Amino acid sequence: MSDENLQIRLAKRPTGAPDPSCFQVERGPKPEPGEGEVLVRHRFLSLDPYMRGRMSDAESYAEPVAIGDVMIGGTVGVVEESRHPKLAKGDFVMSMGGWQTWSVAKGGEVRKLQLPEAHLSLALGALGMPGLTAWWGLKHIGQPTKGETLVVAAATGPVGAMVGQLAQRAGARAVGVAGGPEKCAFATETLGFDACLDHRADDFAEQLAAACPDGVDVYFENVGLPVLGPVMPLLNAHARIPLCGLVAHYNATSLPAGPDRTPVLLGLILRKKIRLEGFIIADHFDEFGAFAADVAPAVLDGSITVREDVVEGLENAPEAFIGMLTGSNFGKLVVKVAD
Amino acid sequence: MSDENLQIRLAKRPTGAPDPSCFQVERGPKPEPGEGEVLVRHRFLSLDPYMRGRMSDAESYAEPVAIGDVMIGGTVGVVEESRHPKLAKGDFVMSMGGWQTWSVAKGGEVRKLQLPEAHLSLALGALGMPGLTAWWGLKHIGQPTKGETLVVAAATGPVGAMVGQLAQRAGARAVGVAGGPEKCAFATETLGFDACLDHRADDFAEQLAAACPDGVDVYFENVGLPVLGPVMPLLNAHARIPLCGLVAHYNATSLPAGPDRTPVLLGLILRKKIRLEGFIIADHFDEFGAFAADVAPAVLDGSITVREDVVEGLENAPEAFIGMLTGSNFGKLVVKVAD
Repeated sequence: MSDENLQIRLAKRPTGAPDPSCFQVERGPKPEPGEGEVLVRHRFLSLDPYMRGRMSDAESYAEPVAIGDVMIGGTVGVVEESRHPKLAKGDFVMSMGGWQTWSVAKGGEVRKLQLPEAHLSLALGALGMPGLTAWWGLKHIGQPTKGETLVVAAATGPVGAMVGQLAQRAGARAVGVAGGPEKCAFATETLGFDACLDHRADDFAEQLAAACPDGVDVYFENVGLPVLGPVMPLLNAHARIPLCGLVAHYNATSLPAGPDRTPVLLGLILRKKIRLEGFIIADHFDEFGAFAADVAPAVLDGSITVREDVVEGLENAPEAFIGMLTGSNFGKLVVKVAD
Repeated sequence: MSDENLQIRLAKRPTGAPDPSCFQVERGPKPEPGEGEVLVRHRFLSLDPYMRGRMSDAESYAEPVAIGDVMIGGTVGVVEESRHPKLAKGDFVMSMGGWQTWSVAKGGEVRKLQLPEAHLSLALGALGMPGLTAWWGLKHIGQPTKGETLVVAAATGPVGAMVGQLAQRAGARAVGVAGGPEKCAFATETLGFDACLDHRADDFAEQLAAACPDGVDVYFENVGLPVLGPVMPLLNAHARIPLCGLVAHYNATSLPAGPDRTPVLLGLILRKKIRLEGFIIADHFDEFGAFAADVAPAVLDGSITVREDVVEGLENAPEAFIGMLTGSNFGKLVVKVAD
């Protein structure tokens, strides 16, 4: 166990897709916890699409990472030193530790984990922010009911996989969208989606229509126009579209070519009486307890299936992150920072 | 009182803006009520933007008017002959009588009016479908609260005027948008809007921003991109956009020039966690009683101000309707069919 703190910092803001030169690796001493703080040694770092937004200084719902700062990110780790009364050395915790091997955090800003040690990384995926995103968006906006049809893209990712399985638990049909035949087969055969279509197929729109013979009642939007476009003509009256991400657009440096199709979307929302609503899961951490009580038993007993894509070594985080933005991961992407 | 039934029928479907050749005037005998029906002599016909949609055969939420059929429309009139047990000769009723001087309707499809005879036309505006549209959209989607800012276009029209006044009753600031200085002055001086901006002004966007120093919490959408565009940068986190109409786009024969700005709208909805929801008021007539109980006293005692634009004579309906689509009316447009 090294006392060195390996860190990955934001070297420059990307134009379009980030490349490795956007990140810089630094090494320093592990930090010292102050009063009320804990020192955490990281086991896993989460890599998530929202981080792309934080690399840019365009207006967003959160402050960007400053040039030279450690990249932000959720982490699970073990408390090595505690100066907080409710946390002890050896506790497993989840916190926003960032892309580094050690961090200090205020005791009130870490969440003590009750998970078995072999499943700690679930706190970054199915039982963490992505799982809560799926659960919250369905509970408050999507609201699938028996016999309805739900479509979600990135179906093998941590949000999509949970969305599909929770929708089925509510009695809805779950139709996934994923990149490539291997992911589609996994979605139907292992995750149990009713269907999964490859968005790279030339006839994707036709396949999607055929897989949704009764139209689409819930489209859980995490991608953007490449999937929303083919979904639009299938939307039923009173369809709901929870919007939690737009990964297809995060690297864009210009808008798609014209004409401006905004009136098409607006007209559809009017005619079909659609509810389209954005949400940022950080606003809703107060419902974490209800989410965990509802979902954790099913994840831990295997009735909800989870797939992780584990990258070894923090130094490989930039490449893994860059790839994730174009779908190269297969399952929830986490970096194993240390054993 | 003529026994002749003057009718205005759809002669052909418009391409772009309708012109007088889209309508044909016919004369025939007044119809005969069947068992369970009433014969109604119309006093007023309502002209509303939604009718433009029914003139086209593009997919919509309702069937189009067939070529050669009488144009649809809400009417108030007097029962001249009743074959329904709950309605009597002399009753004032509201029904979908269409652009004609007489109609028959099933007794269950007319609403008996309790309004004073001098105010019958209110059943087509402030106390009819437009008023219900304003009330329902605010109650279920817009939900303005004390200290918030609401923006609504067509502020002197029947929906906009009611939206602004109901928002103020809820404690919100009401900022209107209208076409021309005369309408803007009426909105602030007579309807009591906190501000009203002329969308024809070159610096409309700047004026709107200045009138909304705390941003926009509710944008009641009845127009489309010409107003939504300038509103977008002003929207606050958790803003709500009830979408009941897109009159600026109804006559469009092509989409606006590129680029495709749909991702801009989607990105804003995500970052600002906006709820954008379409609704068609015909789905919600079951709440008419609650609406009338809430709003009718204030309309009848003048604490909610109503302005009507009354066109004399059914034969002038096409010209008035064509003008309404570009904002030539000033207040709720009704046609006085007969005394």
